[in-house]
Amino acid sequence: MVRAVQLTVFGPGSVQARSDCVAVEAPLEVRLNGEPFAVIMRTPGDDEALALGFLLSESVIEGADEVAEMVSWPDDAALGNRINVVLTPDATNRATAALHGRRQVAMSSACGLCGRVTIDSLRREGAPVPIRWSVPAAILHALPPSLRATQQGFDETGGVHAAGLFGRDGALVTSAEDVGRHNAVDKVVGRMLRERRLPLEDMLLAVSGRVSFEIVQKALIAGIPLVAAVSAPSSLAIECAEIGGLTLAAFVRDGRCNVYTHPERIE
Amino acid sequence: MVRAVQLTVFGPGSVQARSDCVAVEAPLEVRLNGEPFAVIMRTPGDDEALALGFLLSESVIEGADEVAEMVSWPDDAALGNRINVVLTPDATNRATAALHGRRQVAMSSACGLCGRVTIDSLRREGAPVPIRWSVPAAILHALPPSLRATQQGFDETGGVHAAGLFGRDGALVTSAEDVGRHNAVDKVVGRMLRERRLPLEDMLLAVSGRVSFEIVQKALIAGIPLVAAVSAPSSLAIECAEIGGLTLAAFVRDGRCNVYTHPERIE
Repeated sequence: MVRAVQLTVFGPGSVQARSDCVAVEAPLEVRLNGEPFAVIMRTPGDDEALALGFLLSESVIEGADEVAEMVSWPDDAALGNRINVVLTPDATNRATAALHGRRQVAMSSACGLCGRVTIDSLRREGAPVPIRWSVPAAILHALPPSLRATQQGFDETGGVHAAGLFGRDGALVTSAEDVGRHNAVDKVVGRMLRERRLPLEDMLLAVSGRVSFEIVQKALIAGIPLVAAVSAPSSLAIECAEIGGLTLAAFVRDGRCNVYTHPERIE
Repeated sequence: MVRAVQLTVFGPGSVQARSDCVAVEAPLEVRLNGEPFAVIMRTPGDDEALALGFLLSESVIEGADEVAEMVSWPDDAALGNRINVVLTPDATNRATAALHGRRQVAMSSACGLCGRVTIDSLRREGAPVPIRWSVPAAILHALPPSLRATQQGFDETGGVHAAGLFGRDGALVTSAEDVGRHNAVDKVVGRMLRERRLPLEDMLLAVSGRVSFEIVQKALIAGIPLVAAVSAPSSLAIECAEIGGLTLAAFVRDGRCNVYTHPERIE
């Protein structure tokens, strides 16, 4: 569940190459009676228990006796795994009724991927973001405190995430808070979209928490070349940023930051 | 975006009634050309920007010019809001093609609600969990450190959440780590399901992070009467726990805990 990665640490007055461990995030495609049903971004391990618990929560099954068979297999091309859950005939009938009326996409306060039912559909098309500029590391170090100063909801509740868009000079453009970290990103990007300012190729995105695959994908879709997170990145966030030409900085705190991809944008 | 709530603080040697603020979490039903498309659990505010950013990320729209009109209205009965996004005819055609092949449910590493396209479908049926027992507050205080001792992935990466099931005596039954906090809950519940041990009416669920609506709903579906979280609860988690008869404790740290619903289960 852990993978070693290479990174560059931009500290106060020093730049060092280092290796570190990140949590593995990888897709699990859940099939129901052979039909694609859901893609779960998860840390590999105990996929059968995950699929069972997930299907229970989704009211697809009510007990383990309704599952006739579970078969899983890796898909190396898609860097993921697939698991097929075969229901008993009675359970299939009940599940079909329970799922009736569900269509298309839906998402929770913390979701960013919904509506994709196959691993293949996760792939983002488009050329990598070109490297057109660089910023001093000190600009990055200043983003989390600048974002933190806008987090009134966090001050009051301790329970909301924040996302902020900044210019290359580190000046705040806009920020949002939300119980869902992906929502906070959608809100700031949505404002720029409304103002016809996409692609956001001269902006930096700062997020208050961890950075997973979906945050990187949302940034790439909006044309943002650099993401700075206060907390940890996932393995798939790093892979997605590498391919997409995005500079991914994480653990940006205490005057330091760990840069996992494309450090060319940091001076 | 903030709501005042009443709670009971179980500290070392004292029990106090208090009021505090929690982040509002409430459903936004997004309709596309009048048809239900997605339910987003979000903090209210700037719903138009959220809907725009979300539809961009989902490849439904490519720019603001594709949106002909946005209309939102509250739904008091459902405690949520609805927003209808009307696309231009060209954008409708393009979106229909982009969405082709997406079906049913899909979820991210942080999602727990997927597949629901209307607010009404979020409602959980079933009677509240009966109050059959109580545990000393000291048992609750000990859950996070016990869970923390199992978090090897967090030690290595700082990037994974954990969930643990405990007996009423505070003894660990099983725990899991995952980049998705809902996945960690699905994994431990899925293991119990596989062992035919549901409903988990004599177990306590501890989670390493915040507690949102979906965590409470997953606990209720598994029959778990008590959830203890290290970090903050959302407003909807509290409402859902109140109605479902579940004891919700949050900010369980430093020998204290805040109990937001059904403190009768705490001695």
